[in-house]
Amino acid sequence: MGSASAREFKHLVLVRFKDGVQVEEVLKGMEKLVSEMDTINSFFWGEDIESQEMLRQGFTHAFLMTFSSKDDFSSFLAHPSHLQFSSSFSAAIDKALLLDFPAVTVKPPPPPPPAA
Amino acid sequence: MGSASAREFKHLVLVRFKDGVQVEEVLKGMEKLVSEMDTINSFFWGEDIESQEMLRQGFTHAFLMTFSSKDDFSSFLAHPSHLQFSSSFSAAIDKALLLDFPAVTVKPPPPPPPAA
Repeated sequence: MGSASAREFKHLVLVRFKDGVQVEEVLKGMEKLVSEMDTINSFFWGEDIESQEMLRQGFTHAFLMTFSSKDDFSSFLAHPSHLQFSSSFSAAIDKALLLDFPAVTVKPPPPPPPAA
Repeated sequence: MGSASAREFKHLVLVRFKDGVQVEEVLKGMEKLVSEMDTINSFFWGEDIESQEMLRQGFTHAFLMTFSSKDDFSSFLAHPSHLQFSSSFSAAIDKALLLDFPAVTVKPPPPPPPAA
């Protein structure tokens, strides 16, 4: 288990967007934020397509940001760009659930294929 | 954006364990399952330490498995080892929330440092 990856800090956000929200516009804003913030090591999101409604409890989208440390995450939370984005994001969502935790990596991802 | 990583399929599980459950024992069982299942490309978990109770809505642990495809995920769900583990896991948890989705990778993780 790599010592660096074992201590990564994860910021997990589940949401349901309000009816009528242009989700693609929100995602564009999020992608811009992520691209500007060097403290975000990696980021992916997804829209549930498989889980039963009962099991997802109304949440439709998941967002996961990875930081090198809890300190980097704390800096991100306080950054003006994040605060600005959060304001518009909060207005677009019907409900949200957040978990923030140091990740315990049991099986690390395989290395990417070599660049061509 | 790598075409392979863009199509990874994620299985996200949030839970709260029942009072008195030996969480470490449950985690050992999960780690054994993950190590045995080649279709699981990567796996990490974490225990929330940061989010406010209001924001995490009672959920304390997050588990994230990554598969190469939805087909691999479906095979995993039907595998006898998974079914056996799920039975004991369900008995240990107070509540759960699941999201299953193809991941849209906006910022891929940096490559790991070269092995020594």
